[in-house]
Amino acid sequence: MKKGCPYGTHRVIEPKGVLPQPALKIDNDMEIYDNEILIDVQTLNIDSASFTQIKEEAQGDIEKIKEIMKNIVATRGKHQNPVTGSGGMLIGTVEKIGPALEGKTDLKVGDKIATLVSLSLTPLRIDEFLETRKDIDQVDIKGKAILFQSGIYAVLPKDLPENLALSVLDVAGAPAQAAKLVKPGDYVVVIGGTGKSGMLCLYEAKKRVGVTGKVICVGSTDKSVARAKGANLADEYIKVDATDALALHDKVKELTNGRMADVTINCVNIPNTEMTSILSTKNEGLIYFFSMATSFTKAALGAEGVGKDVTMIVGNGYTKGHAEIALQIMRESETLRKIYEELYG
Amino acid sequence: MKKGCPYGTHRVIEPKGVLPQPALKIDNDMEIYDNEILIDVQTLNIDSASFTQIKEEAQGDIEKIKEIMKNIVATRGKHQNPVTGSGGMLIGTVEKIGPALEGKTDLKVGDKIATLVSLSLTPLRIDEFLETRKDIDQVDIKGKAILFQSGIYAVLPKDLPENLALSVLDVAGAPAQAAKLVKPGDYVVVIGGTGKSGMLCLYEAKKRVGVTGKVICVGSTDKSVARAKGANLADEYIKVDATDALALHDKVKELTNGRMADVTINCVNIPNTEMTSILSTKNEGLIYFFSMATSFTKAALGAEGVGKDVTMIVGNGYTKGHAEIALQIMRESETLRKIYEELYG
Repeated sequence: MKKGCPYGTHRVIEPKGVLPQPALKIDNDMEIYDNEILIDVQTLNIDSASFTQIKEEAQGDIEKIKEIMKNIVATRGKHQNPVTGSGGMLIGTVEKIGPALEGKTDLKVGDKIATLVSLSLTPLRIDEFLETRKDIDQVDIKGKAILFQSGIYAVLPKDLPENLALSVLDVAGAPAQAAKLVKPGDYVVVIGGTGKSGMLCLYEAKKRVGVTGKVICVGSTDKSVARAKGANLADEYIKVDATDALALHDKVKELTNGRMADVTINCVNIPNTEMTSILSTKNEGLIYFFSMATSFTKAALGAEGVGKDVTMIVGNGYTKGHAEIALQIMRESETLRKIYEELYG
Repeated sequence: MKKGCPYGTHRVIEPKGVLPQPALKIDNDMEIYDNEILIDVQTLNIDSASFTQIKEEAQGDIEKIKEIMKNIVATRGKHQNPVTGSGGMLIGTVEKIGPALEGKTDLKVGDKIATLVSLSLTPLRIDEFLETRKDIDQVDIKGKAILFQSGIYAVLPKDLPENLALSVLDVAGAPAQAAKLVKPGDYVVVIGGTGKSGMLCLYEAKKRVGVTGKVICVGSTDKSVARAKGANLADEYIKVDATDALALHDKVKELTNGRMADVTINCVNIPNTEMTSILSTKNEGLIYFFSMATSFTKAALGAEGVGKDVTMIVGNGYTKGHAEIALQIMRESETLRKIYEELYG
């Protein structure tokens, strides 16, 4: 049996020497190396920015969506959207565990897991498309995938429905980071606060700001804002187009009496919202970009361009304990659980 | 006289409603609004990632470089490289000051200034190309530019040569951020440590880590590494290709006895060095991406892909006092001043 690198570099076909995520093409042959785990895939949960782009390109047509997804995997050996660069995650059942992992993993053959590493670096083979749930970015397939030794995962909890757990785990990094960053007394603006990751961030932020703080939810439709309001997720609600930097700046200014946000969390899955985040944040404040549609140069040059001294953090999908934190919200809040079951379950 | 917005939105032609930096096209008519400053431009200092791309596209040919630059300004009304998204900065003389700025600016007509906002949002007109210094990314021109009310600038110091000041101010954000982030006892890795921003970061890091810390300089050529070594800028030196994540990981592991970097500063002006930064940094460490060639998704998904809990910061070109901090290095260190005069002066 062939020996593999913990990071999966042995699968990289092009360009040589890079890791699987930045690679253009990786080997998706399903014969495992000694330190790999073979997964029998059940569901792909495509990254929101990626699936939005695919749906637009396919003009909503399901067959066309499947064709685009098939082409991506055929070209790259992994489901990495060439436009957005992003992937998603999957659930499936452990089929084989490489012998080198013995004693190093608590997984057993037959365990149902969600991979918490991106599909943008996961060797994947799609044999057949089953159901496509295009409103929640999920696609059931017959297929196989490989988890590398360094790859993170969560065994699916028994007390939560699978699709619900998958939806929540997909964005687990966001609420965990919000929990780490928000302090008592902070004014927090969550742009895209009515979406999947946004509502979880609002929930964690609200727990932490206390009575002297303020959490502001920004959404783009009447319906989604009303939903967040109904769940009492924030102190204030703003309906605005997230690309309209000046409009949101004016509203945040009004609601914070000119102080602006101490922490802004961007969870919007559309491009060109960097300046909106920058203008809503006070000098020496913090911006956390969780959106995969974020442009590095637009953020860096945007802040410089208006002379704003803000710390801007790249949303790392992983932080210690993120799966536990996110799943726990579904146990703590019956209201949120109902919303997530209805929207993504 | 027409009234302008502090952020320059009145100049945006396409798409409507965005700020000048993300805009595809802005108005570069040189009749000023009431809150604008007209600058008689002397030198453009093109962002390193941008100029590297332009030189490659032009295959080093000076006339072709000029043509590409001319086309960029003709298409966008500003010097924003469509491939890298980045700009650069300029020096010039204040020619006119809008009446609305009276009492709000300390500038006078005739002051020689460097604009510290990016060329990627600065209305610019190039009338004639004079000298092109392609090895230091500088182009002398006849032309005009506009500084918005929110635009930051530095009056050029009288005790330093102009080109030297411009080169240093161009990367002023990097050493100022390094000074803020590095703490006593830290192990610091500066990737691209032998370049213009890298050497300034090494200098600031070395001042702060103290005897219990360690500063590691990473460069790609024997010559540049020897130069940094000659100036005693770091404790250790590594020559490696910055896109080779695993090679640098192994060397940093060896030099830090397995601890890895507390802080990694990325100043490399080539793509695909995100994973190199991530693998060199310890869990719960900090990565500061100053390079404009950084990809947001590659950083975010790369860290998640290897299960690394690191805080990744988008290099903001502006932070309070950055111009003063950077220029002061040239006064403090005779060795560095000599190197910068020779390389960029």
